[in-house]
Amino acid sequence: MATDRVLSPARHSGEIGDEQEEALLTGQHVGRKGQTGRGRGFFSRWKNPIIVTWAAIATIIILVFGVLYVRSHPDDDKPTPGAPNTPKAPKNHKKRNLIFMVSDGMGPASLSLTRSFRQFTENLPIDDVLTLDKHFIGSSRTRSSNSLVTDSAAGATAFSCGMKSYNGAISILPDGNPCGTVLEAAKAAGYMTGLVVTTSITDATPACFNSHVNMRWEQDRIAEQQIGDGPLGRVTDLMFGGGLCHFTPNTSIGSCRGDDRDLIKEARAGGFQLAYTMNAFKYLRMGKFVKFPILGLWAPGDIPYDIDRLDTEFPSLAAMAETAITALEIETRTSDKGFFLMIEGSRIDHAGHGNDPAAQVREVRAFDKAFEVVLKKIDQMETETIVISTSDHETGGLSTARQLHDTYPDYLWYPSVLANASHSAEYIAKLLADFPEPGKMKITEYIKDELLPLQKITDADDEEIAKLVKAKTDGLSTAYIWSDMISRRAQIGWSTHGHSAVDVNIYAYPREKVKKLWGNHENTEIGEFLRNYLDVDVDSITKKLRKEGTHAKWMGKELDEILTETEKSMGVGGKVGEVTVDGLDGYHGVHKRACMH
Amino acid sequence: MATDRVLSPARHSGEIGDEQEEALLTGQHVGRKGQTGRGRGFFSRWKNPIIVTWAAIATIIILVFGVLYVRSHPDDDKPTPGAPNTPKAPKNHKKRNLIFMVSDGMGPASLSLTRSFRQFTENLPIDDVLTLDKHFIGSSRTRSSNSLVTDSAAGATAFSCGMKSYNGAISILPDGNPCGTVLEAAKAAGYMTGLVVTTSITDATPACFNSHVNMRWEQDRIAEQQIGDGPLGRVTDLMFGGGLCHFTPNTSIGSCRGDDRDLIKEARAGGFQLAYTMNAFKYLRMGKFVKFPILGLWAPGDIPYDIDRLDTEFPSLAAMAETAITALEIETRTSDKGFFLMIEGSRIDHAGHGNDPAAQVREVRAFDKAFEVVLKKIDQMETETIVISTSDHETGGLSTARQLHDTYPDYLWYPSVLANASHSAEYIAKLLADFPEPGKMKITEYIKDELLPLQKITDADDEEIAKLVKAKTDGLSTAYIWSDMISRRAQIGWSTHGHSAVDVNIYAYPREKVKKLWGNHENTEIGEFLRNYLDVDVDSITKKLRKEGTHAKWMGKELDEILTETEKSMGVGGKVGEVTVDGLDGYHGVHKRACMH
Repeated sequence: MATDRVLSPARHSGEIGDEQEEALLTGQHVGRKGQTGRGRGFFSRWKNPIIVTWAAIATIIILVFGVLYVRSHPDDDKPTPGAPNTPKAPKNHKKRNLIFMVSDGMGPASLSLTRSFRQFTENLPIDDVLTLDKHFIGSSRTRSSNSLVTDSAAGATAFSCGMKSYNGAISILPDGNPCGTVLEAAKAAGYMTGLVVTTSITDATPACFNSHVNMRWEQDRIAEQQIGDGPLGRVTDLMFGGGLCHFTPNTSIGSCRGDDRDLIKEARAGGFQLAYTMNAFKYLRMGKFVKFPILGLWAPGDIPYDIDRLDTEFPSLAAMAETAITALEIETRTSDKGFFLMIEGSRIDHAGHGNDPAAQVREVRAFDKAFEVVLKKIDQMETETIVISTSDHETGGLSTARQLHDTYPDYLWYPSVLANASHSAEYIAKLLADFPEPGKMKITEYIKDELLPLQKITDADDEEIAKLVKAKTDGLSTAYIWSDMISRRAQIGWSTHGHSAVDVNIYAYPREKVKKLWGNHENTEIGEFLRNYLDVDVDSITKKLRKEGTHAKWMGKELDEILTETEKSMGVGGKVGEVTVDGLDGYHGVHKRACMH
Repeated sequence: MATDRVLSPARHSGEIGDEQEEALLTGQHVGRKGQTGRGRGFFSRWKNPIIVTWAAIATIIILVFGVLYVRSHPDDDKPTPGAPNTPKAPKNHKKRNLIFMVSDGMGPASLSLTRSFRQFTENLPIDDVLTLDKHFIGSSRTRSSNSLVTDSAAGATAFSCGMKSYNGAISILPDGNPCGTVLEAAKAAGYMTGLVVTTSITDATPACFNSHVNMRWEQDRIAEQQIGDGPLGRVTDLMFGGGLCHFTPNTSIGSCRGDDRDLIKEARAGGFQLAYTMNAFKYLRMGKFVKFPILGLWAPGDIPYDIDRLDTEFPSLAAMAETAITALEIETRTSDKGFFLMIEGSRIDHAGHGNDPAAQVREVRAFDKAFEVVLKKIDQMETETIVISTSDHETGGLSTARQLHDTYPDYLWYPSVLANASHSAEYIAKLLADFPEPGKMKITEYIKDELLPLQKITDADDEEIAKLVKAKTDGLSTAYIWSDMISRRAQIGWSTHGHSAVDVNIYAYPREKVKKLWGNHENTEIGEFLRNYLDVDVDSITKKLRKEGTHAKWMGKELDEILTETEKSMGVGGKVGEVTVDGLDGYHGVHKRACMH
């Protein structure tokens, strides 16, 4: 037989000669010069049994090692069961979906508040927890570039661009340049994209994913970019939420635009399926009948609080989330890319701003239900899908404890008071504001006989009622007063109608896929994780946007133009006459406090 | 050569016969009946090269598998380098130390407060974090058996006994029976035990580990049990903290005991090394000169706040922690059991009760430094050691944001104001209380010229100063007023002088050893983890304690005896005329709020 000298492994071992090799191969003894009997030496005499024994032992070792290795790596590169016919790609390019949930304004105290409320109302044991609680993995630090207390715009820019910016910035950096977002980069990479919110779709959090303006209240510009009128064209395939008024011309009733552009008409021309009513939502058949791209705006402004919402009039966050996921899943079934979907429990924040604990517990509960739906969908989905849920900041300085007297406080708070309230303070205040005057009934009677019973408040005193009457007579909103009546009775405290700086929680499923976010992180690290998980090129989007020029017209008015003199001196940066977008301001003499109510 | 037929592996392979084996061993061809040339068959002709090749491949596979396996299991059962000569025991009985840290009253907002304060004062980048932040693993739910808002007693009972009890309970359950603690069980199992605190050693948190009384303010009974006068005798080897006044007879100056028992004398008779001064602490040589058991009480009551503490007069929490760990490590070096040590940052809670943010940031910082020391010691220690750090509850309803006006609030707070304060409100209030009257100087001048400059408050207005003067003249403490002056200027909010219900953080190192506490947990699960980690039998301690009888005299007065009528109607359970220790109370008409200050 021919021996390939170059390729033969034994050739290079230095231990087995040609002749011996021949002998091993044929079973024929080949004599060696100068070697006889014992003289052939210990090694060559023993090498064959050693090899055989080693081969046997090695086989056993390999089997044992193999079993151990497989056992200790149950999920390593395991293909998703029943995965679709996607082309075999490198691990980090595997088809995947990313669902990013934002509980706007939900701080740590909102969780214990809602958990205890649910235990009370549903008569559950004291160790019963929210679905979110079961998937808690870490916390996020939230400060912005120009304040220890962020707003939702800077908060969402940290998620969308992965960078710190100033309060009010919609995916614009402190230097005035736009930054590409994970949603834009996902779209460019071939993913389907979606935004589901309960506030106006033009509000800061959703806006940061698909638009760029210098200050968040440029909502008309945001709406234009959202339907595709920006340097990148249309980047969003699905938008569900409120905020129709920014899409209709100011010549029509209910519009809140500053001009007469008809974005509904433009969106339709751009191919959008449009939907505004609960009937239209029902027609979508929980996502089975969605035609992409779709713009579903279910309210002129915000969708009502969950405590006030009628299932016959507005979809729940959970229903919108399920519809969006199902539709995106169907649409991407034959694609080699999945989808990126942002789902926001937007109005947890509003309940915080209103210091309304009865509304807040229902908003958090609605968010938790949406999270449950997302988990259920993930478990059913063929494509690898993860969900990450976090907040942009806390709102209200909520405390589940409140001292009512100068005497030392009791250690308690009362969930029953929140359970008794049937509506938000916003809703009750609207009823009172709408009460016609002068009418047959006195305001005081209306409050006592019709409004207080809605909240099951039976012990309102004269001072409280007088305060409500005065505000109504002065034409002011009574929402804060109603909130405070509930908060005081429940012994729930608030320190502000704005935001606070406490770290917010991070939740994820499956948690093993989100190891990089375990523990305490800067909010920008969440933004980085999103782009890395999808493996999309955000920087090239940034470059593309910047080709349009810094401070370009499409990014809305300049900060100096948009801020009033008071805002410049009080608000964004705190320095009189200029806008500080980076670095903190110091104390300069504002310490007086009137009793808040 | 002799072939051992029984042991020869080849003998049982069924593929290699004796003769062939002989041929392989000797290199001599052995003829086989009926087999010639090609007739020997394909398999026997090829088996030798197959075996050799397989042996080579198998070797490579084993090497590759081995490397992969070791890489993926860096910590699996790896013996501690340089481990002492302990007997080889089953894994769960391996010698180990457990350090349990309690940041009393530290909620989530205290962390962002202190982190930002530190960044400001030490000029650090915005992503600089506390040492605790790097070891964040989860959060703990804190409610007690009779309230959504726990106190430190019920909180520490959850840790020590692993069970829920009523507010005020010192390791006593709602049924009036004592429950064995992890420290007592550790002592019984042969561990060394220690408690290090900055408050009185008889305060609720330390007390729950080594004593049992029906209500936390039975501190004389607690002190007696702590030095060994209880059913279990002495269970604690090391106690560092304050609270000397509960150990000295009421016939001596500075005592706070109700009787004339001299526990110092009794402790000495029981073998305790006693230490009271900074000189004595220094003599301990950071733990190298400790004689066990030791009782080190460095103050009559609490050790001063870290912001007020002089290093020449009182040891820091970090120094006490290091001394305790070093001493316990040396003492257990030849033992087959390690130690259990509880370290409490006790006065974070007090700063919360006082709503004093300037004191709180320094207390949290001191706790973080103690945590750093613990990590350093763990890394140096030969015996496996873990640290778990958590809080019992939040105190104060702290918010890092505060609305000062009815106008919409700014999103900010000012760390510089806290940095400017050189003392706690408690300290400044004490100075004012001690100011002799009438004297040469007017109170107003003293406040303006000497006290305000200590806190660098340059813009105090007449109203604030009048409030201070009035309180001083009325003989009341001005501490709350001083705290509020700082809090308002820093825009830090508080909702109560008591506790709140928010979840608190859990930290651990090494985190891989504490996997069961990752995520969100009931505080009792932390208690369960402690006993399980040490593998000690808490139940047998409970049985032993209960042999002494329910409601036994040594557990202090009965609740009905100890609570006033007002406390019974307002406090523990909220029901008039009886004490509710299990189950929640409902709202019954307390909603009026005076402006707190």
